[in-house]
Amino acid sequence: MNLPIAGIMGPGEQATAKDQRLAYELGQRLAHHGWAVLTGGRQCGVMDAASRGAKQAGGLTIGVLPTRDRTNVSPAIDVVILTGMGDARNAINVLSSHVIIACGIGAGTASEIALGIKANKPVILLHPEPDHYRFFHHLAPTLVSAVATPAEVIPLAQVWFPL
Amino acid sequence: MNLPIAGIMGPGEQATAKDQRLAYELGQRLAHHGWAVLTGGRQCGVMDAASRGAKQAGGLTIGVLPTRDRTNVSPAIDVVILTGMGDARNAINVLSSHVIIACGIGAGTASEIALGIKANKPVILLHPEPDHYRFFHHLAPTLVSAVATPAEVIPLAQVWFPL
Amino acid sequence: MNLPIAGIMGPGEQATAKDQRLAYELGQRLAHHGWAVLTGGRQCGVMDAASRGAKQAGGLTIGVLPTRDRTNVSPAIDVVILTGMGDARNAINVLSSHVIIACGIGAGTASEIALGIKANKPVILLHPEPDHYRFFHHLAPTLVSAVATPAEVIPLAQVWFPL
Amino acid sequence: MNLPIAGIMGPGEQATAKDQRLAYELGQRLAHHGWAVLTGGRQCGVMDAASRGAKQAGGLTIGVLPTRDRTNVSPAIDVVILTGMGDARNAINVLSSHVIIACGIGAGTASEIALGIKANKPVILLHPEPDHYRFFHHLAPTLVSAVATPAEVIPLAQVWFPL
Repeated sequence: MNLPIAGIMGPGEQATAKDQRLAYELGQRLAHHGWAVLTGGRQCGVMDAASRGAKQAGGLTIGVLPTRDRTNVSPAIDVVILTGMGDARNAINVLSSHVIIACGIGAGTASEIALGIKANKPVILLHPEPDHYRFFHHLAPTLVSAVATPAEVIPLAQVWFPL
Repeated sequence: MNLPIAGIMGPGEQATAKDQRLAYELGQRLAHHGWAVLTGGRQCGVMDAASRGAKQAGGLTIGVLPTRDRTNVSPAIDVVILTGMGDARNAINVLSSHVIIACGIGAGTASEIALGIKANKPVILLHPEPDHYRFFHHLAPTLVSAVATPAEVIPLAQVWFPL
Repeated sequence: MNLPIAGIMGPGEQATAKDQRLAYELGQRLAHHGWAVLTGGRQCGVMDAASRGAKQAGGLTIGVLPTRDRTNVSPAIDVVILTGMGDARNAINVLSSHVIIACGIGAGTASEIALGIKANKPVILLHPEPDHYRFFHHLAPTLVSAVATPAEVIPLAQVWFPL
Repeated sequence: MNLPIAGIMGPGEQATAKDQRLAYELGQRLAHHGWAVLTGGRQCGVMDAASRGAKQAGGLTIGVLPTRDRTNVSPAIDVVILTGMGDARNAINVLSSHVIIACGIGAGTASEIALGIKANKPVILLHPEPDHYRFFHHLAPTLVSAVATPAEVIPLAQVWFPL
């Protein structure tokens, strides 16, 4: 059965401690509610934290890597997709996700939010800066929403994809 | 834990009944021995048969699709990766697989065998035409091997990636 | 000789009349100063206007298309690169450009600006909304600048790549 | 005006002296007859030789690179497309070419011939081994042809795309 996939996007090396704490809890909660969790798959930042959270809750984790080899893949990833395509893989991340949740910001994350909107995907910003929310919400008012906590992500994700 | 992935490549619409029978059994056997099975993910030919076999044996199935939407995804796929990249996704299929097994031939399959060799991956041809085996074996004698039955694939795959 | 390439990014169907007027003039000026002009290549919006401007000034135009066929390619494109990769081609657009100029905004353009920053490329926003400039400049203060007119783009582009 | 593009595919580091001599002459002849010449763009083997030949004849050269940076780009390339996608860029090479000519063989070249066939493109094998011709011709009898010399490529290419 095709599994429901929640994509968690966020900074790698630049992730703050708070980004990672939120990502871990988000991964846990999504897995607990039956979502497979997809990230960029590297062993750092939001990708790694979200995957570890999801595994802690017994979920399935998917990593879509920019690299062609396995150096730097998070050990918390079950399904390792090696693209060898650098940031072009961001387009795959968003297409493969039923719902996209951004946790923190950076250039890579901004590109994934924008590509998600372009692909007509629901995008949930977790505890965003008001300016960032305004920017993306203005690009696509019906697709972009914001929530303050990981707990609030779950009912919103289920509006878009009922489990 | 990063799962071991066996990529099963083969024709879609052009697959013969025998290609599909072999692919189904191959999917079963690989899943039974602990491999996740990766295919091109569409609901036809070798991709679909291998995925159904793997599911029958309780395995995990991954499909890396050429399309950007879910029309035509095999229902036997658990993890649906939508690339929206057409046949450029063939490069992802081979990079993501620890071992590649080709079951049948066609232009797409030939491209995956060749890309697999280019990526320095072990490629096992299942019951190939002698001419086809000769062509690919000549390109990479140490990477390309041939076997007559799905059962023979298992020990050979485990030479490359011990489970 | 590897030609210097200026990438002009901007909305397609959603481009305003002003976006297109600025893009046309920008294409003209860049071509006049020796730049090859790269766009997304479709026959609409900023892509088409910039390419027509560049051709009017005798320049070389490159289009990196999302599609795999030639339907909808701007006739003002000399070098048609068909990727068949949808918006994943946005990553190619920014990597191939020595300088990126954004003319107007939309989700696709926002993804290209963000991917450009991620790839460490200079990005010039032409007559941006103050909010948009603030958002991207905050992501990468040393890479992102803004100018009010096409004429001002030229000296700035030449700071990054002297012709 | 969208230029007619001939893609010349062949080995890089593994190219023989004869592959390179044929590629150089082929680039010359195609450029002389009005084709833009597209290759993989690296400074070695068939890619470099074909591009140098085309430039010697005053043609336009396009290189679609696997890398994301300019190290190793042939100086004989005019239009450098940096994909950062490794061998997935082979799919772009064949989609962007009106006609594909293979000069020599290797795993990468074999993948491009196969992807070319999959994309329904005419593929001309220049002085191939009889076995190789047989293999690919069997995959697509109406698309794959073979010629003995660069001079014979020109009229055949013009059957597919009259200049």
